[in-house]
Amino acid sequence: MSDVHFERIALIGIGLIGSSIARDVKQLGLAKHVVVSTRSEDTLTRAEELELGTEYTVSAADAVRDADLVIVSVPVGASEAVAKQIAGSLKPGAIVTDVGSTKASVIAQMAPHMPDNVHFIPGHPLAGTEKSGPDAGFAGLFRDRWCIFTPLPDTDTAALDRLKAFWIALGSRVDDMDPEHHDKVLAIVSHLPHIIAYNIVGTADDLETVTESEVIKYSASGFRDFTRLAASDPTMWRDICLHNKDAILEMLARFSEDLAYLQRAIRWGEGDKLFELFTRTRAIRRSIVQAGQDVDAPDFGRHALETKK
Amino acid sequence: MSDVHFERIALIGIGLIGSSIARDVKQLGLAKHVVVSTRSEDTLTRAEELELGTEYTVSAADAVRDADLVIVSVPVGASEAVAKQIAGSLKPGAIVTDVGSTKASVIAQMAPHMPDNVHFIPGHPLAGTEKSGPDAGFAGLFRDRWCIFTPLPDTDTAALDRLKAFWIALGSRVDDMDPEHHDKVLAIVSHLPHIIAYNIVGTADDLETVTESEVIKYSASGFRDFTRLAASDPTMWRDICLHNKDAILEMLARFSEDLAYLQRAIRWGEGDKLFELFTRTRAIRRSIVQAGQDVDAPDFGRHALETKK
Repeated sequence: MSDVHFERIALIGIGLIGSSIARDVKQLGLAKHVVVSTRSEDTLTRAEELELGTEYTVSAADAVRDADLVIVSVPVGASEAVAKQIAGSLKPGAIVTDVGSTKASVIAQMAPHMPDNVHFIPGHPLAGTEKSGPDAGFAGLFRDRWCIFTPLPDTDTAALDRLKAFWIALGSRVDDMDPEHHDKVLAIVSHLPHIIAYNIVGTADDLETVTESEVIKYSASGFRDFTRLAASDPTMWRDICLHNKDAILEMLARFSEDLAYLQRAIRWGEGDKLFELFTRTRAIRRSIVQAGQDVDAPDFGRHALETKK
Repeated sequence: MSDVHFERIALIGIGLIGSSIARDVKQLGLAKHVVVSTRSEDTLTRAEELELGTEYTVSAADAVRDADLVIVSVPVGASEAVAKQIAGSLKPGAIVTDVGSTKASVIAQMAPHMPDNVHFIPGHPLAGTEKSGPDAGFAGLFRDRWCIFTPLPDTDTAALDRLKAFWIALGSRVDDMDPEHHDKVLAIVSHLPHIIAYNIVGTADDLETVTESEVIKYSASGFRDFTRLAASDPTMWRDICLHNKDAILEMLARFSEDLAYLQRAIRWGEGDKLFELFTRTRAIRRSIVQAGQDVDAPDFGRHALETKK
């Protein structure tokens, strides 16, 4: 398949997400020119070594000049700074989108700086791994994953459709959502899980009675499942926590309330309450596997990988 | 390799763990006779269909008669009942072991019933998946996983060595530990992670603002990692919660304290505290992968499986 969707794409930020987009665009021939831009000279050099684009610059303003599609893939806390940098150089009619995990905050940071003659369409591909940086990306990252758009009230339908067609070409399924609702959904399906994972790994690290080497040695009995999320990019996750504060605090409060209930059931030996919850949650796993959102193989299929060694 | 370790093995309980042992024993030729016993007629029939043993009986007392090695693989809450059933039929000199995830409680339940002329050696293979039942087991489950023994003060060294040699033949690495220390270690590396996973899946299931179908649809952004542990056997986990209460409550208290600290940092926008924790936890993941206790592939290697489809 070779189907040029855009003459020139500017990728602002070339980490896991940006570099995966770059690889897909190159492999599928979705653009004639791909300008890669990142603040770090080292990362830019690495992107060039990996041949992720056709042009490279540390200047976001230079990168977006003449681009038909601008994809901002930076930690959400950097959104406003990028918006300010690119605002004056955007081509009239260009589509500007992002990949941030919080949408209300990104809109608040970027929208005020966007010229009237560009299409600013916030987006969020729900894809990633615990790795980060330009080497971590790979073609196919977005295949069968959702990409959620949170268009503004005045978003041009044709531009939205064009952007969706691009993401569909990357293999994504697309969806629209209200920004506030997106932020609540993500708070429970992504942000709370990451925060909990970071927290439990921190708790384990701080114990005096159990050594760190014991935690590592015996981690296959459950703990290791959490360490993957807790190995995600610290800057990205600091920013998400700070920029989706309200929804995250709401989910944290509910989680803690539920945990107190469970703790009480353990203390008082209420086996029936434990059994009821433990049975209910099993059904959700089944639904996720049925929906094609996780593999059915036991242990996430690790065993297959481990025995291949 | 065909190296008979025991003339006759009795497997009391034939779920994920029992049936995995059975498959290994058969494949490696570690015993001449393998008696499979479980209370459920249906499960016993299934075990027979799967040809997991050489003899089958619903009576645990009958199963252990003449057995040189008895492996009890039942939910830990059933340990005392099994001990009472088998006590009168055990062969003098037999080794009796178990696979339970809590050791102090299993010892308290079983040791008082064990005749003086058998070797009761509590054990715990740190292996498993989220699946349960005789169909879920597979040969090689214990390969490169730890099996921890918590011998009693009067345990015969020769018997312990013989039992260890058996587990080493299954591919396990072996370790000794004090029962109370085992229970604390497992509380953090296994029990707390499972409880937290069950809890967050429950929290997500109970939301009014985010639908269950949204949780399922978008689960790949983090949530799905928790659903695997939360799909584990409810009876087994109810029993663990009830039988390792003190250590679990201690770990839960610490976890909640740490979470309150994190929540406060989010509320007050203390990005440096978040960044410090999120950086520290990343190192632990690296150590686990280096220790060979998890795969290095992103996303637990799911991507490799997904793209194979």
